[in-house]
Parts: sequence; structure tokens; C-alpha cells
Amino acid sequence: MTRQRRQATPRTFTLPIRVYLEDTDAQGFVYNASYFRFMERARTECLREAGIDHEACRDDFGVHFVLARIEASFRAPSQLSDTLSVSANVTEIRGARMLFEQTVRRGAPDGELICSGIAEVACMDAASRRPRRFPDAIFNEWS
Amino acid sequence: MTRQRRQATPRTFTLPIRVYLEDTDAQGFVYNASYFRFMERARTECLREAGIDHEACRDDFGVHFVLARIEASFRAPSQLSDTLSVSANVTEIRGARMLFEQTVRRGAPDGELICSGIAEVACMDAASRRPRRFPDAIFNEWS
Amino acid sequence: MTRQRRQATPRTFTLPIRVYLEDTDAQGFVYNASYFRFMERARTECLREAGIDHEACRDDFGVHFVLARIEASFRAPSQLSDTLSVSANVTEIRGARMLFEQTVRRGAPDGELICSGIAEVACMDAASRRPRRFPDAIFNEWS
Amino acid sequence: MTRQRRQATPRTFTLPIRVYLEDTDAQGFVYNASYFRFMERARTECLREAGIDHEACRDDFGVHFVLARIEASFRAPSQLSDTLSVSANVTEIRGARMLFEQTVRRGAPDGELICSGIAEVACMDAASRRPRRFPDAIFNEWS
Repeated sequence: MTRQRRQATPRTFTLPIRVYLEDTDAQGFVYNASYFRFMERARTECLREAGIDHEACRDDFGVHFVLARIEASFRAPSQLSDTLSVSANVTEIRGARMLFEQTVRRGAPDGELICSGIAEVACMDAASRRPRRFPDAIFNEWS
Repeated sequence: MTRQRRQATPRTFTLPIRVYLEDTDAQGFVYNASYFRFMERARTECLREAGIDHEACRDDFGVHFVLARIEASFRAPSQLSDTLSVSANVTEIRGARMLFEQTVRRGAPDGELICSGIAEVACMDAASRRPRRFPDAIFNEWS
Repeated sequence: MTRQRRQATPRTFTLPIRVYLEDTDAQGFVYNASYFRFMERARTECLREAGIDHEACRDDFGVHFVLARIEASFRAPSQLSDTLSVSANVTEIRGARMLFEQTVRRGAPDGELICSGIAEVACMDAASRRPRRFPDAIFNEWS
Repeated sequence: MTRQRRQATPRTFTLPIRVYLEDTDAQGFVYNASYFRFMERARTECLREAGIDHEACRDDFGVHFVLARIEASFRAPSQLSDTLSVSANVTEIRGARMLFEQTVRRGAPDGELICSGIAEVACMDAASRRPRRFPDAIFNEWS
């Protein structure tokens, strides 16, 4: 049997997000932690589009996903009332880890780059809270 | 048997809170929802000081507390780097409801009034999620 | 000259909002301060639909809006992955104050009531930070 | 003249932080973006201890600091009511960039590792919003 590891087929998901006061700070721009909220919304909707929402994970598969590692580079500021395009693209899935490449762009999905990031999501057994291979139904979605 | 209702003995709890970037917005001041986070921190510490933390509620009493109603008036703005005094004062406890009067002041506990509020907290059975009288140990704390 | 005060014509604005992990807390439901973020998003979009966004306020009118008072009653919990309908309805505008009635409902705009609130928004001079009558263009929008 | 670049002298700053409901999510643990808020509080207090707060930056030096890049690895979950020790340690300062190594530990500063991160902070001219060398007074603080 071969080791389970696949390059995910490229398929970028993009979520439009409006910047509200709650997302900004007194320096006049979007607060840094807000981008991590935005990136998670995009990952959630990316997975939901593939039929994998929080409830399916828990009830059908007995797992949940947790963020194991994330990095983000902030290239340009965004501000109140901006509309952002936040992407989530699964680039690799292997064992208990799934990699997302993510960008935040101003306006359209090909707009100015605001932030780029990489998120590593781990599959955890909901009961034992220990890492567990992604269920096949999820694994095969990105193969 | 008399109906359980008591005016709580006056005993004001005050929590010092520093304003960070995360709490502010692009208008240059503390964002309105941040005050509700601050007020809940103060209620939590007020209860903890009385020996009633989230874990005791759940494990010893089988209840948790949820916010049933809250109102706040914003009198003056506060801003980045301010230190605030956030008070929580139980003014009434009756049946499944506990009333807190709360203030946010700039600097010392008798500083300029930033925000005043009233929070009504309900005692819920942790299993059934239905309202339940406060356990005696909690009830008696404010009598 | 008559005193400026009008009952706003009824015209309810509703914004659909998805509940993400960021909005929930460890009790398993939406965290209370999240509803205040949701209600402000709805007020913002309600005003934007009427042509009054943060930028127009500042650049065209030299004002911004700040929350002067808010109250909310929490009737039922909402949870992760729910879609909510959050309404904002201007019910009165007078001098430097505008009143919004707001509801948060589960699913459709006539769904189960989660939260109801009243927000009082003040018009502030952007330069002096003092209350100021709403500009006529804004005042007349709700007359 | 030699190029300005220094290894900062090791001097770890640690900030105790209590976990409140606002910081958690419905999976029952601290929400990932909360750690970025915690890490920024620690950087802010680390700088404040060295006499460099937001106001000094802006008023004395005409700069502000913005987050240019951050990464974090999540090693273990933390939960409601935990007390955390959040460290911020300037490890390098050069040109317009300052590097912080940061950890979040459970309980004492030598407690279980929850999260480790690296933050790269840029010095921006407050007026032009362009990168600018750190003022000498700040630069020399870590030499």
C-alpha cells in the first residue's frame, strides 16, 4: 500500500468580505488579527462548498479540524468599507494535515495583494482530541 | 415559605483593563462591542472572587450563566493605551436572574465615566439548557 | 420654524450573516458581544443602502456616527454555522439622535427571534467631536 | 559607517493573560486569532516597558509600528479560565524591521508550551506611511 499523500488539484475558492468598524483599529486600518478571522471564514466556506462543514465533520466523521500552524505576510493595508476577496486553496493533503494557500486582495479576486498566508490544518479525533488521518471522503475530495 | 428575592449587599468589584489596538476602531476610539467584552471580564472576576468560576458552575452546580439582557450608555470615548476601571456590582438576585450594575471609568475607579450598563444574567441548567434557580451557595453569597 | 423631529417611515433593512467560529464561545453558542458586531454591520449596510457610508459622512458632511446607547435582549441561542437575518430599522430621527430597532433571527427574516435590540446613534462633528444635528440630506432620507 | 544591524540582547518580557469567554470558540478552546491578540498585547507591553508606547512613537518620533509578518505554531490547546504567560523577546533589530520571538505558555512562564511565534514589526513614517529606519532612541534600546 502506498503512503497517502496527494497534491491537491488546483481549485481556488474566493469569499468576498466587507470590512466593518469591528475589523479596524485606531491606526486607521484593518487590525492584524482580523485577517486571521477572514482567512478562517474562507477556509470554512471552501470546505463547506465541498460538503464538509463543522457539523458533517463532527456527526458523520467524528473529527474536527484545528489550526496547527499559520503564517501571514502583510503587504498593503486595507481599510474601513473595503471589499476584500479572500481565497482559500487546498494545495496538499497528507495523513492528518491539510495545507491551504490563502490571499487577501482588495476588490476583485485579482485585485491588489493585501496579505498572503499559509495555513496548516490538522484533523483531530473529536473524542480523543488526538490527530487522525483525514476520512477518505474528505481526502478524496482533493485528489 | 417566602419567595426567594434579595437585594444584594453592596460590594463593588473593579477590574483594571488596559486598552489595546484590538479594542479600538478606525474612528480612533474604543469600539462599542469591546465594552461588552470588558464588562463580561469584570462580571467573571467578580464571580470568581466569590468562588464562582465557570468550572465551579459546571462541575459543582451543573449550571452555567448566560447573558439574558444588557444595556449600555456611552458617555465619553476612551482610547488606545487608556487604563480603565471596569466595575461589576450585583444589585439583585432572584429566582434564575442576577442583576449587575456596571461602569467603565477612565483611570481610577472614581475616574471619568465612560460607559454605564446593566446586565441581567440567567442561571441555566447545563444539561437541559433551561432556566434554573441559582444554587443556594451562589444565592447566599449576595444576601 | 418647527422643531426637527420625524417618525421615520417604516423600511426594514435585513442583512444575512453566517456564524463562524470567531463568533462563538466555549459555552457552545454565539458569544454575546458578537451580536453587537452583527447589529452594527446591519446598521452600516442599512445606511449604505441609503447612500450614507462612513466615507460620505466624513468627506461630504464632516460628521461621523457613534453609538450613544444600546440595549439587547437575548431570547434564544444561535450557534456555529447558523445563518442569521439581522435587521436594522430607523424608527426615529431627531436632532443629533437616530433610533434603530434591530432583531437577529435564525434563518429567514421571519425566523425564530434570537435577539432584539434598540440602538441610539449620535451624529458627531468629525472635527470637534461634539454632537451635531444630522445633515439635511441624511435627515430627509428617513422622513 | 557600518550598517545598522544588531542582535538584540536577550531580555524576555512576559505578560500574564487570563482566558475569558470572548477568547474561546465553540470547539471548546481558545480561538486561533485570539493568540494573535495576546501576542500583540505582549509586544505592546514589552515596548511600553522600554518607554516606547503608541503615543511616544507618534508624538515623539512620528512613527508607528505595523505588523509585517507573523507566524505561529499551535502545540497544545488552552481553555476558558486558564492563565497564560505570553512572552515577547526582541531578537533582532535592523533598518526598519524588528523581530520578536514569542511564546504562549500555560500558567507560569516556564509552563507547558501552547503556541510559539515569530513576529516581524515594521517602523512606518506616521505621515507618509512608508517604511523608515527605527529612531535611534528605539534602536539603541535593544543593542
